[in-house]
Amino acid sequence: MNGSSKLLVQEVALRDGLQMEQVFVPTEEKIRLADALSGAGFSRIEVSSFVSPKAIPALRDAADVFAGITRRPGTIYVALVPNQKGAERALAAGADEINLVMSASETHNRANMGMTREASLAGFAAIVQAVRGSNVSVNASIATAFGCPFEGEQPIEKIEAIIDRYLRLGVTGITLADTTGMANPRQVAKTVRRALERMPAGALTLHFHDTRGLGLANVLAAWQAGAYRFDAALGGLGGCPFAPGASGNICTEDLVSMAHEMQLETGLDLAALIDLSRRLPSLIGHAVPGQVAKAGPPSRLHPKPGFAARSDGPRGIAD
Amino acid sequence: MNGSSKLLVQEVALRDGLQMEQVFVPTEEKIRLADALSGAGFSRIEVSSFVSPKAIPALRDAADVFAGITRRPGTIYVALVPNQKGAERALAAGADEINLVMSASETHNRANMGMTREASLAGFAAIVQAVRGSNVSVNASIATAFGCPFEGEQPIEKIEAIIDRYLRLGVTGITLADTTGMANPRQVAKTVRRALERMPAGALTLHFHDTRGLGLANVLAAWQAGAYRFDAALGGLGGCPFAPGASGNICTEDLVSMAHEMQLETGLDLAALIDLSRRLPSLIGHAVPGQVAKAGPPSRLHPKPGFAARSDGPRGIAD
Repeated sequence: MNGSSKLLVQEVALRDGLQMEQVFVPTEEKIRLADALSGAGFSRIEVSSFVSPKAIPALRDAADVFAGITRRPGTIYVALVPNQKGAERALAAGADEINLVMSASETHNRANMGMTREASLAGFAAIVQAVRGSNVSVNASIATAFGCPFEGEQPIEKIEAIIDRYLRLGVTGITLADTTGMANPRQVAKTVRRALERMPAGALTLHFHDTRGLGLANVLAAWQAGAYRFDAALGGLGGCPFAPGASGNICTEDLVSMAHEMQLETGLDLAALIDLSRRLPSLIGHAVPGQVAKAGPPSRLHPKPGFAARSDGPRGIAD
Repeated sequence: MNGSSKLLVQEVALRDGLQMEQVFVPTEEKIRLADALSGAGFSRIEVSSFVSPKAIPALRDAADVFAGITRRPGTIYVALVPNQKGAERALAAGADEINLVMSASETHNRANMGMTREASLAGFAAIVQAVRGSNVSVNASIATAFGCPFEGEQPIEKIEAIIDRYLRLGVTGITLADTTGMANPRQVAKTVRRALERMPAGALTLHFHDTRGLGLANVLAAWQAGAYRFDAALGGLGGCPFAPGASGNICTEDLVSMAHEMQLETGLDLAALIDLSRRLPSLIGHAVPGQVAKAGPPSRLHPKPGFAARSDGPRGIAD
């Protein structure tokens, strides 16, 4: 059971979580949540997405959110960006990092981004050029890296080729994303090992969805293979357009609880995260998948029961 | 990523799942489900519990369920039993195996079983004696093996001592149970390795609850440490008396999907399990936690979208 003694968790609920919601969370609530998250210790927060407001109305206030947050020293505020226009808006809004996204699957990239992968890559080259010389860093994500809902499994050689293209573009970080929760631990271990032959662990982020319940098992496999940077969403927000009712991103507080129980440092305040997660339902109008916010952390013990009333034989028979 | 190429899954929804439900599932529905589960390939099904009907009214029909099921050759039908009286009833009902349960934690054993651990062990000795010479096998479970909601973490030496007592009693199998979902992968790996110094993997079962979302990560850790037998409940039935709204046992179809994706054999028909899981809400009156029944297996692909209507730029921006 070997891996890094620290996990770096990037909070993505404000972006990958809220983009799936039907309700528009008011701008001031988003700002309040971003500030509470930085207060809980996150060094990286994906704040919003600079996409067409027609495509994702839930995030149409991206610039206002960036303008309103209180910048915590040491926290990197990230914006997801699909194209050059989005990059210009993100830079103008003061994003510390822009996160580009292209799918491993050509079919998914056309469905998700409305363009071919070659068109995506051409745009990314222009964006990297435009950013060069500024203090803004560029991360590039590979969506459907562990499987595409239209095409199925993506060959690992295809992922390696995209990593190489991204690295040649000059990005500073790469994210492998399991967009619709198709990854399994064996595949994750192999893919992470192969990726780490091409880049250092400090530049590699894993983005898992819990669509089929394997999110934290995949984190464990990735961590054992040498990765230590993970995206996660408070409460497990996120969902999946192909699986109504299914879980979303891996849940931040569940991941942090696992890490702390395993004696891994995250720099995060779990009690604060649980408190924030419990406020999500009132913000978005429905329950969220996270478990630790319901059960409490394992360290929270219960008062010992009185036994006088229980001498009449077995009561619970739990195992 | 090494471990056994096969997983043995014991289905426990009829016992550990239904005992938590407020509704009484009609006996004929239980029988139908047990027969459907054996039809889906289970070699081990925990059918019911021979406890006081006052303690667990949901399982008051244990003998009738055993009498009604169609025995599939090769399937072992298990009954949970708290004491000698329960054992007599289980034997009379024709159980193939009886599963005894005692907590690692003295406090939990008194709360759950209404007796001290020494009283539990004395009863177990009598039961093993009574069964000796018959074809009925005896498994013994250690509840709260990975933590007690009253006492907290249980020292591994305590678990080893109970394993030794169980083995001296002459049981044929031992289950380590994470009764309230307090285990973490690092602890699981260590505990399984230590247990397997005392007994073969073929006699060791792990029983995980997903109370804090770590169920399948714990399975992965246990499998890597050499274990291959796991309890799981269809749909993730089960719940936790200390965590209202929390998940229950690890979900059978999610576990089986993970195993199959990792190329591990289970002998189980995943499509049949998903079909059965989807019928659970009508049986018990509420949704169940399992994810694969909602999302479908990863191999279920979606029709490729038409692109003509999507040439106007990014639409989804999922990663």
